[in-house]
Amino acid sequence: MPASINRQVLLRSRPSGMPKPSDFDLVESPVPTPGEGEFLCRTIHLSLDPYMRGRISGGQSYAASVEPGQVIVGATVGEVIESKHPGVAQGDLVLGYDGWQAYALSRGVGVRKLDPEQAPISTALGVLGMPGMTAYVGLLDIGQPKPEETVVVSAASGAVGSAVGQIAKIKGCRAVGIAGSQDKCDYVVRELGFDACVNYKTGDLVQALRKACPTGIDVYFENVGGDVQKAVLQVINTNARIPLCGLISEYNAVEPPSGPNWRPLLINRALIKGFMASDHVSRMGDFLADCSRWVREGKLKYREDVVVGLENAPEAFIGLLQGKNFGKLLVRVSDDPTIR
Amino acid sequence: MPASINRQVLLRSRPSGMPKPSDFDLVESPVPTPGEGEFLCRTIHLSLDPYMRGRISGGQSYAASVEPGQVIVGATVGEVIESKHPGVAQGDLVLGYDGWQAYALSRGVGVRKLDPEQAPISTALGVLGMPGMTAYVGLLDIGQPKPEETVVVSAASGAVGSAVGQIAKIKGCRAVGIAGSQDKCDYVVRELGFDACVNYKTGDLVQALRKACPTGIDVYFENVGGDVQKAVLQVINTNARIPLCGLISEYNAVEPPSGPNWRPLLINRALIKGFMASDHVSRMGDFLADCSRWVREGKLKYREDVVVGLENAPEAFIGLLQGKNFGKLLVRVSDDPTIR
Repeated sequence: MPASINRQVLLRSRPSGMPKPSDFDLVESPVPTPGEGEFLCRTIHLSLDPYMRGRISGGQSYAASVEPGQVIVGATVGEVIESKHPGVAQGDLVLGYDGWQAYALSRGVGVRKLDPEQAPISTALGVLGMPGMTAYVGLLDIGQPKPEETVVVSAASGAVGSAVGQIAKIKGCRAVGIAGSQDKCDYVVRELGFDACVNYKTGDLVQALRKACPTGIDVYFENVGGDVQKAVLQVINTNARIPLCGLISEYNAVEPPSGPNWRPLLINRALIKGFMASDHVSRMGDFLADCSRWVREGKLKYREDVVVGLENAPEAFIGLLQGKNFGKLLVRVSDDPTIR
Repeated sequence: MPASINRQVLLRSRPSGMPKPSDFDLVESPVPTPGEGEFLCRTIHLSLDPYMRGRISGGQSYAASVEPGQVIVGATVGEVIESKHPGVAQGDLVLGYDGWQAYALSRGVGVRKLDPEQAPISTALGVLGMPGMTAYVGLLDIGQPKPEETVVVSAASGAVGSAVGQIAKIKGCRAVGIAGSQDKCDYVVRELGFDACVNYKTGDLVQALRKACPTGIDVYFENVGGDVQKAVLQVINTNARIPLCGLISEYNAVEPPSGPNWRPLLINRALIKGFMASDHVSRMGDFLADCSRWVREGKLKYREDVVVGLENAPEAFIGLLQGKNFGKLLVRVSDDPTIR
């Protein structure tokens, strides 16, 4: 039986600059009842991802904004606890997009059933979900890495970055990470098998990149923007490719900072391509086949940073924007111990 | 019989910022005599192009720098006046790379014979030469314009830009230019058939672009950089393509200026690709076939801005960097009236 009380995190006010806890409201409301063609899900895991910063802004982005008073959006893994939908049964575990709330109704659009025998269900929000797909299509389809080339990825210990570097290794490349602490750098080299990792907070980043990339940078998978971006452009090779995935260092800027001069792009005939995984749905089958196998074979590892309790989602999200998480950030919403 | 005195323009000193006439030396020297496998050419036309600014700088570019004391490089059309080369005869007209001088020896590498019956020989330096090829591969292969899309090109009345807009029209696109005077804007609309042209020196460029491009910008052929680049990025569409050909507004900067923030690229999943025509030699046959036909059919017009006398090359080149030329800038080096 569902509980009778739902809990939701709403956007109270649009953040200016870095979001504050007071920009969010935790509210209670009745758990809704499914009508014909609907089912009710209890959220187990909520995914926190950098793109959400754009959704709670009023500005232009690739999707509609969350309005003040609305539930914040987000991908979720949940358990179906009541169904009037012909394709979904009570007890099914599903990947959905229910947002920051404990219970939600769905009509099944975009929902995918999960098999916990195949992989831990939380991986559908990470290495076998949107972040993994982002790494896969961005690196392989846009970055087009060739064996022996050097692939650099920023936010290297994150959900996307950690997959980028490991897939680069699988493809025979030199993989170099950029991360924001020595612990993160040690992790991506020792645990994930990157060839090197540079801490952007210490020393001269251009020099460090030149040392870590003795033959220059052929592919730069861009997650962060800002000064890291400017440094990387000094070290790119002729015909470099730059999959542009994110600019997390800039998401809280009230005015977007200037970017780097384009001269290195011109001289090196480099390519930049902004992309998002959802534009590449035709590759979903390849992604799931390859990455599931690599996870099983131990070639594609992942790390989760799990915060317990929906009430802690705002603080965890703010930490994500500050680089405080270490691995794929998840909020454990349901505390039902029978669900793993 | 060749004259006995050659004239050459040498680089005296590397310019800092905008070049000055005193950065160049006009010198006389003996006309050289061809050895076995060589031929002597008398320069008829010298092409002046923006990329030369990079060659006379000491910094990194895509080709070796001109050193102080050396003849400035440049494409030329000349007449063979003495040959000990088996494939070239006296009287042949050839496209070469003899630089800023009245006579030069060649071994024939990279030289192409020209047929004045097919097209005026000066076009081998413009619409049927490197600038035309740059427009062709940059627009078609990188820009990938589709019918009904909007193509914007900066430096629209120049050798490259004027071809870009006309090829865009041939391909069924809306063509919008950006230029630096009302005369130039009038020319590209009235003479070349662009749909609109915006004078970047007057008024609000973003507003003017929005008006000239009511459905946004699908392809931006970038020749100039600077504030024009920043304005254009505000008006690009989802999946926009940006062939990056040049950044002429920045070539004289002692420190390269900041570029635009990459957020519009990310949100719109845009593509930027630096390129140069010489990386696309496999397309030379297609280019010559298509563009020669379009020129004959009157669909691809061109305008030459001819400066008479090698001694005037430095001043003309400085004017080019300031946008003072109007059309493809050539220096008429030989004053032999029998050669057209």
